Amino acid sequence: MPVPQASVIIAAAGAGRRFIEATTPRRAGSARGEASKVFVNLGGRPVLAHVLSAFAAVDSVVEMIVAVSAETVEWAGETFGGMASEGRRLQFIAGGGERIQSVALALEASDRSTELVAIHDAVRPLIRPAVIAEAMRVAVEYGAAVVGQPIDHTIKTVTEDGLVAETVPRRSLWMAQTPQVFRREIITQAYGRRGDMVGSVTDDAQLVEAMGQTVMMVPGDAANVKITTPEDLRVCEAILAAGWPFEQ
Amino acid sequence: MPVPQASVIIAAAGAGRRFIEATTPRRAGSARGEASKVFVNLGGRPVLAHVLSAFAAVDSVVEMIVAVSAETVEWAGETFGGMASEGRRLQFIAGGGERIQSVALALEASDRSTELVAIHDAVRPLIRPAVIAEAMRVAVEYGAAVVGQPIDHTIKTVTEDGLVAETVPRRSLWMAQTPQVFRREIITQAYGRRGDMVGSVTDDAQLVEAMGQTVMMVPGDAANVKITTPEDLRVCEAILAAGWPFEQ
Repeated sequence: MPVPQASVIIAAAGAGRRFIEATTPRRAGSARGEASKVFVNLGGRPVLAHVLSAFAAVDSVVEMIVAVSAETVEWAGETFGGMASEGRRLQFIAGGGERIQSVALALEASDRSTELVAIHDAVRPLIRPAVIAEAMRVAVEYGAAVVGQPIDHTIKTVTEDGLVAETVPRRSLWMAQTPQVFRREIITQAYGRRGDMVGSVTDDAQLVEAMGQTVMMVPGDAANVKITTPEDLRVCEAILAAGWPFEQ
Repeated sequence: MPVPQASVIIAAAGAGRRFIEATTPRRAGSARGEASKVFVNLGGRPVLAHVLSAFAAVDSVVEMIVAVSAETVEWAGETFGGMASEGRRLQFIAGGGERIQSVALALEASDRSTELVAIHDAVRPLIRPAVIAEAMRVAVEYGAAVVGQPIDHTIKTVTEDGLVAETVPRRSLWMAQTPQVFRREIITQAYGRRGDMVGSVTDDAQLVEAMGQTVMMVPGDAANVKITTPEDLRVCEAILAAGWPFEQ
C-alpha cells in the first residue's frame, strides 16, 4: 500500500498569551516582549522544534503549516525555516483569534492534493512519530482518528461552588489529545459547517462527530502532555531528562 | 481553633499485583518474590516511605494505618516501623481482596476518638503536606473533602470497539485523586451501607455522595500521580529529580 500524503496543521497562535515569568523570558520571549509557550526552551530546543521534528520523522508528511500570531510570522519563518527539508514544505501563517479560526486558515493554505490532514497542538512537544503514523493509518481506514489516553482516574462533576455533583461512570472515558487526523474531504466538510458550533467546540474531532462521521480513538502516551502551566513545562523537561522516549 | 485529630488509612493491599519487571525487582520485591509498586524505589526511598513522610508532616495526624497484603504485614512492620514517632502511631494490617474491603478493615482498626479519617492511595507518593492539611480543614467544615484536579482536556466516551461515541462537556469535570478526608461519623456510616455498591465504587467519596452528603473538591497538584505503570514511576522519578515540590 502506498504511503498516503499528509498535510500537518500546527496550531500555535492561541499559545501566544503571556506565560508566567518563572519559565521565561528565554530567547524568543524576551526579544519580542512576548513569552509564548511554543517558543520556550525545552531540553535545549524550543517547544515547537520538538513538534516539527516529530512530524518530520513521519514518511507521510509532505507539508507542515504552523499558525502563529500575526506579528510572529516573519520571525518564526526565519528561525525555524531551516527545519524544512526536500519534499517537506514548512510555512508559517497568521492565525485567527480563536484556535478554530487558525485551523480554518491553515486548512485554506494547505495543499489540496494531500489525502490526509493532521491537526496538532503546538504545545504537545513529546508526541512520538510512531503514534502519529498509527493515527494516520487509522484515519486512512476510518476517515478520522484522535490520539488519546484512557482515563484511569475517577471523574466527578463539580459545581461552581466546588461541590461534587456526581461521579461519572469511567469505563468508557478517554482524554482526547492531538494529533487528530482526518481524510481531507471529511475535515474540509466539517470546517465548512463549523459556524453553528463555534464557542462550544473544544477539539476538531467534535466537528466531525457532529456530522455523524465515524471517529476512532488511537491510544497515545501519557507523556504527550499539553503545556499549559509552568509546572507542565517542568514535567516535560523532567520526562525528557529521564530519557524519554523510554521504550525506543 | 484546636487542630482536629485525624486517622490516616493508606490502601496498599491492592497494589501487590505483579509489577512489570523493567522497574523491579528492587529490594522488597525480589526478597518476597513479589514486586509491589508500593515498595519500589523512588528517588532513593520506597514509594510508601514518601507517603508516610508526607502525612507525618501534618499536625493533625495521630495515627497511620497501612493495609497491605497478609503475607507482607510482618515484613512491612519491621521495615517501616521506625517511621512512627511519639504521638503518631503506625500500624500495618492485612487488607482484603478489594480496596473497599481493605479500607473497611482499616476503619475498624482505627482509633475511634479521632474526628477525621483520611484515606489515601499508597501509590500516590508526591502528595504535599499542605494539600493534605487543606483537605482536612475543608472536611472539618463540610464533612467530606476530595483532592482533585480540574480537567483541561477534552473528554470523549469511547465504545469497546474504539469508536468515539460523544464529547463530554468539560466545564465542570474534575479528576478525583486522594487523599479523601471525612468526618469520622460520615465515612463510618457510608461504609456501613457499602454492601449495595461494591463493584461499582471507584472511590470512597462515592459512598458518601450516595448518602446525599455534601462532598467538596479541593484543588491538588498535577504531580500527585497515581503509579499504575512503569512509565508512571519514571514520571514520578523525573518530577522528583527536577526538584519537586517546585514552589516550596
